[in-house]
Amino acid sequence: MIKTFAIGIDMGNTTTSIGIVDTQGNIISKSSVKTDYQHIAEYIDAIYNHLSVLIEQQGGIDYIKGIGISSSDGNYFTGCVEFAPEHTWSGNTPIAQILADKLQLPVTLTNGANAAAMGEMEYGIAQGMKDFILLSLDNEVCRGAVANGEIIYGHKIFSGKSGHINVHNDRGRICKCGRKDCLEAYCSTDGIITTTLELLISSKETSTLRNIPQNELTFENIYEASIQGDSLAKEVFRFTGDILGQLLSDLIAYSSPKAFILSGKVAKSNEFFMQAIQKSFEENLLQIYIGKTKILTSDIENSDAIILGTSLLAWNSKLVEA
Amino acid sequence: MIKTFAIGIDMGNTTTSIGIVDTQGNIISKSSVKTDYQHIAEYIDAIYNHLSVLIEQQGGIDYIKGIGISSSDGNYFTGCVEFAPEHTWSGNTPIAQILADKLQLPVTLTNGANAAAMGEMEYGIAQGMKDFILLSLDNEVCRGAVANGEIIYGHKIFSGKSGHINVHNDRGRICKCGRKDCLEAYCSTDGIITTTLELLISSKETSTLRNIPQNELTFENIYEASIQGDSLAKEVFRFTGDILGQLLSDLIAYSSPKAFILSGKVAKSNEFFMQAIQKSFEENLLQIYIGKTKILTSDIENSDAIILGTSLLAWNSKLVEA
Repeated sequence: MIKTFAIGIDMGNTTTSIGIVDTQGNIISKSSVKTDYQHIAEYIDAIYNHLSVLIEQQGGIDYIKGIGISSSDGNYFTGCVEFAPEHTWSGNTPIAQILADKLQLPVTLTNGANAAAMGEMEYGIAQGMKDFILLSLDNEVCRGAVANGEIIYGHKIFSGKSGHINVHNDRGRICKCGRKDCLEAYCSTDGIITTTLELLISSKETSTLRNIPQNELTFENIYEASIQGDSLAKEVFRFTGDILGQLLSDLIAYSSPKAFILSGKVAKSNEFFMQAIQKSFEENLLQIYIGKTKILTSDIENSDAIILGTSLLAWNSKLVEA
Repeated sequence: MIKTFAIGIDMGNTTTSIGIVDTQGNIISKSSVKTDYQHIAEYIDAIYNHLSVLIEQQGGIDYIKGIGISSSDGNYFTGCVEFAPEHTWSGNTPIAQILADKLQLPVTLTNGANAAAMGEMEYGIAQGMKDFILLSLDNEVCRGAVANGEIIYGHKIFSGKSGHINVHNDRGRICKCGRKDCLEAYCSTDGIITTTLELLISSKETSTLRNIPQNELTFENIYEASIQGDSLAKEVFRFTGDILGQLLSDLIAYSSPKAFILSGKVAKSNEFFMQAIQKSFEENLLQIYIGKTKILTSDIENSDAIILGTSLLAWNSKLVEA
């Protein structure tokens, strides 16, 4: 039987998106389940129930090549989700094997930024590129890097935790990892909220954000305010872009990519954020690199890029057999 | 005729080393010429004259597969030496084509750190590794990075100028590139001399280095003093190791290599330098990376690693035909 579909799964921290993808990279049907079940068995059951419906709609399991799935700290080599405190059932969980046994399909695991990079390379803004770095800016900051047309998985696990590179800002801001001044402490959604709270205290600027109780302030509030022209909210994105641009100028001296691709909620923000990134990037760049590398934003919904990228794992590989 | 030898050439800033390498990676004969000729034609003639003797000793040109050559800012894709101000004849020089025409052999160009990484992967301390980063610490600081068993050349040119990553030290020390606080400004031989001069002023410590006129102080003086137990010289290496260790802890969050391999004059220094690097590396490392990546020093003479690495280019590729 010719396999005409592959399944891509984006395991987010709260929501898991599931898609059936055809050989041309069209997501022909989608569904979602919540991620934060207390027990892994309940979570797997939920995926199974939703996927069964989608699979039947396409004519049954015989038409399905396999499953690719992404998770924060998903280890491509072992198929295990390792040290992902955001999942209550985490702790070296062999998610690929569990899913393969349940669904009787081969399953390959990776992490979200790698999956998004694969999706962008095959179907998105990175088509034709062999050397690029995708930075996923969301509640976490991760990177998917492609060199010589291949994902850099690195040695063993954990390649891509670029959110924990130290940035050139000595505020001493504590990161979730316990260290100080990591990229993620500034350029994630939480980092942007922290910057806003700090600025609301240190600045006298009027701002609509002052009307929102501190513990209810969201990234979306700040984004919306910036779009409406709120000076303080715009300053938050300028500050954040300045840090990110400098980091990109350092990364270029490391691997000389053709482009940086920014994806995720934070990247979808606004043009003064992009201007601030570009300005800081160029100011800090080694002269010989000027004009060589573009900073682009993904034009695929992040979750779709991940579904597409994980579906490619299903087409290309069968690391964990049912 | 079976090709039994390849030629590797390490074009240093002042000296060019030439080696004939057999299929097993033995450098069976070597020679050297100076690099800093006024005109490229004189330089090529010198290489030709020395190489002709070596080639004849092995039975003639029919036994030679080709030539690999490395240069600072050597562009693998174009075969040109670009923007290398240390060569008087520099300025987008098509060195691979010129050599190929003169010697009637195929020539492939790369840069020194990439060549050293290839040499280490095939014949040295990185044998069996598919993901590692070599840092060449000399009068320049460059990196050769291997991911998925392949050199990361990056987009177009200039991959590997990691000496110009900004380090977490805000002394404002001016780098040769004109920017401030680059890695190379601290961890090159010149950087170490600068640190020593600063420390000789700011510290009251007695030191044998105080007997040497400032403008005569060399890296070798400082190295020798540190080996003899001179506290100020040891402090120079501790300070330098602290900066380098922190940078390595950031690079690991980027590409998760199996090992960092330090090569070049500065890396061959001494055990308290290595201790300082290791200490700073571990102190700054994201917890999940602890124990995953080794810091090693090359045990091949840097120039030999480059000759071996460039000879591999000759075995594997023929980018520029005679």
